[in-house]
Order: sequence, then C-alpha cells, then structure tokens
Amino acid sequence: MSNLLDQVNPELFRIYAFWSVILVAKMLLMSLYTTVTRFRKMAFINPEDVKSISAKLKVIFGDPDVERVRRAHRNDLENILPFFVVAFLYLLTNPDPRWATKLIRAVVVSRIVHSLVYGLMPVPQPARLLSFGVTMLVTFYMVVQCALYFV
Amino acid sequence: MSNLLDQVNPELFRIYAFWSVILVAKMLLMSLYTTVTRFRKMAFINPEDVKSISAKLKVIFGDPDVERVRRAHRNDLENILPFFVVAFLYLLTNPDPRWATKLIRAVVVSRIVHSLVYGLMPVPQPARLLSFGVTMLVTFYMVVQCALYFV
Amino acid sequence: MSNLLDQVNPELFRIYAFWSVILVAKMLLMSLYTTVTRFRKMAFINPEDVKSISAKLKVIFGDPDVERVRRAHRNDLENILPFFVVAFLYLLTNPDPRWATKLIRAVVVSRIVHSLVYGLMPVPQPARLLSFGVTMLVTFYMVVQCALYFV
Repeated sequence: MSNLLDQVNPELFRIYAFWSVILVAKMLLMSLYTTVTRFRKMAFINPEDVKSISAKLKVIFGDPDVERVRRAHRNDLENILPFFVVAFLYLLTNPDPRWATKLIRAVVVSRIVHSLVYGLMPVPQPARLLSFGVTMLVTFYMVVQCALYFV
Repeated sequence: MSNLLDQVNPELFRIYAFWSVILVAKMLLMSLYTTVTRFRKMAFINPEDVKSISAKLKVIFGDPDVERVRRAHRNDLENILPFFVVAFLYLLTNPDPRWATKLIRAVVVSRIVHSLVYGLMPVPQPARLLSFGVTMLVTFYMVVQCALYFV
Repeated sequence: MSNLLDQVNPELFRIYAFWSVILVAKMLLMSLYTTVTRFRKMAFINPEDVKSISAKLKVIFGDPDVERVRRAHRNDLENILPFFVVAFLYLLTNPDPRWATKLIRAVVVSRIVHSLVYGLMPVPQPARLLSFGVTMLVTFYMVVQCALYFV
C-alpha cells in the first residue's frame, strides 16, 4: 500500500484532515443543539431525564423543533460520514490538488449552510435542497473518480 | 505505521477501495429514493418543503412507505459505515487476499440485496434477515481477526 | 503522505485498531439487542416480519423499550463513528502515546457504560450524561489538536 499512500499530496492531505475535523465538530454541535432545544421546549424523551429535572415534568415525544434538529443531525450522518470515506480514497487517486481542495471546501460550506437552514432556522426552499445537493454531487463525483481509478 | 501499511496487498486495497465507493453510492441512492418516495406519496415532513410544492399540501408524518425506506437507509448507516472501518483495519492484518476479496464481495452483494428487499420491494422473510446476517457475520469475523492481531 | 503516516507510533496505532474493533463489536451488539427486545416485547415494525412469526401478530410502532435501544444505538452512530475519523487523524499529529492511549481507553469505557445505562438498564441521571460527556469532551479535544496541527 505504500505505493498507494506515497502518492498522496501531503498538502492536500492536510486540507482533508483539517476540514474533516471541522465537519466532525459541526456534527457534534448538532448533538449539543438537540439538548439545548430539548431544554428550551422542555421536551425530554427518557423517563430518567424527566425525573432528574422536575417531578412535574412529563415525557414528550415528537416535539417538532427537537425532531427538526434530529433530522438535520441524521442527514449529517447520512452524508458527512460517507464523504469522509470517499474523500480519503479520492486523495489516493492522484487528483489535481487545487481542484480537490475546492471540492472539499465546497462540501464543508454546503454542510454548514445545510445545518443552519435546517437545524437552526427554517428558510424557504430551495435553500436546503441546494446545500444538500452540493455535497451529494461532489460525493457522487468522487465515487465515480474512485471507481474508475480502482476498478 | 509504515511497517503496518506497507504489508497491505495493493491489489487487495484496490478491491477494498472500489467496493467501498460502490457501497457509498448505494447508500446515497437510498437518500434519493427517500425523496422519490416522498414525492410519490406526497408525504413531506418539513413545513417549508410543503409550502414550496403546493399551498394545499399538508405535512405528513410517518408515511409507511417513506419510513420503510428510511429504516433501510438507517440500517445501512448501522452496518456499512462500521464495515468500512473494520475492513480497512482487517487489510492491515495480512489476510489471504483471495479470502479477503470474497468477504468484501459477500458484504457488497448482501447489502445490495438488503436494500432491494427492504427499501425497494418487500419480500417475505427470511430474505432480509439473510442479507442482513451475511454482513453482520463477516463484520464480526473481521472484528475477531483484528482483535487477535492487534491485541 | 508517507511523511505523515511514518510518524505514527506503531504501538499507538495498534491500540487504536484494537479498541476501534471492540467499539464496532459493541455497536453491532446494539443491533442484535434491538432484535432481542423486539422478540421480548413482540413489537415488530415490518408487515413481512410479523407474518413470518405468527398470523395473529400485528405491527407495533414505537414500543418504548425498543425505541430506547434504538436511541442508544443511534447515539453510537452519532458519536463513535466520528470518533474513528478524528482519532485516526489525531494519531498523525504526533501525540504523546501514553496520553493518547488514555484518551482512547476513556472513550471505549464511556461508550460501553453509555450503552449499559441507556440501552440495557435505565439508571438515574447523570449516569448517561457523564458517560456521553466523556466521549464528547475527548472528541472535541482531538478536534482542536488536529485543527491546530493541520491548519
């Protein structure tokens, strides 16, 4: 595998690594934002959570604001986690570093916008569709490049 | 780590990389298929989606067909994403390349079958159970091989 | 990239690899435990599952025990999978091996405790909060270390 890994541009790998941890931080913030939203709406789902806060509180399922943040978070799992895998493999296909850097940055921006317009403040469509689509297109492009290279 | 990575069979890594991106493409298709199913059933969950399509449309939670595709997709997250990690580490344990190739291909086939019988067209059990079980068994096998090698 | 990967301490990578596959095994057990719980409560969600077990059985959505295990499992996806990525990149930042080993082990212990107090047997808070918090803090710490190193 050394022959595979040795051809990765170290500068490009650095960019991949830096933006990957930024995306992870963004994902973890969705988790914290879910908790913030549960407290704001006092909508907790586990009996032991409710008990630890107030004896009068009841379990509340399906609060729309909480569920909205959770859908945004799940969308991250569906799109960002596979991106980490494909982008890592894409780095091994000897891409043009400047082009690959642009693709990685486009994904980071689009996923941050997606979280803002989905989880934080609803914005009329097609804001979410476009932000979702950028990452989807870049990931599919990388899949095709990898499939052609590794086939 | 060079001593670890250098022992990976480049041909085997190529097979891992190729089939991994195929599995990622399959996962992304579940996402698109969810959207297709939402349009087919006109079952949208976000107020801004509904508004952007028709003034008369209402938000619909829990459409059985949409939820079915979403469960199939979530099952991918639960099984394919951990497989990427374990299979990558398994490549470093110096496995027989022909055996490892068979395991990887078995997982790919079983996950594609799983998506077909779960997300696309319900088929009587044990079709889904078997397709789910193949990946589960291969992943557990790789976990054991890795645990014995890296302990 | 060879210059990046060559600086990884092989012993530290071994520890990362070993505990990663243990965490994957723990995640897969959540999947099996969901099935066990569905049988215990006879709460199946797909028509073809119900049919294959008994003609009298009906589909049951939202059984509290099943949903509880599923939430614990989803929490794994949200926290363990990003940890795999960040921890791998963190290994490339030339951390002190003994410190990095402690961080990895803390995450493993905290996630096993989290599964026990969430999925297996409800325990009064703040048991789950603390077990969740350890992994969250370690992951954020690694994100910051990686961001500073790769920027």
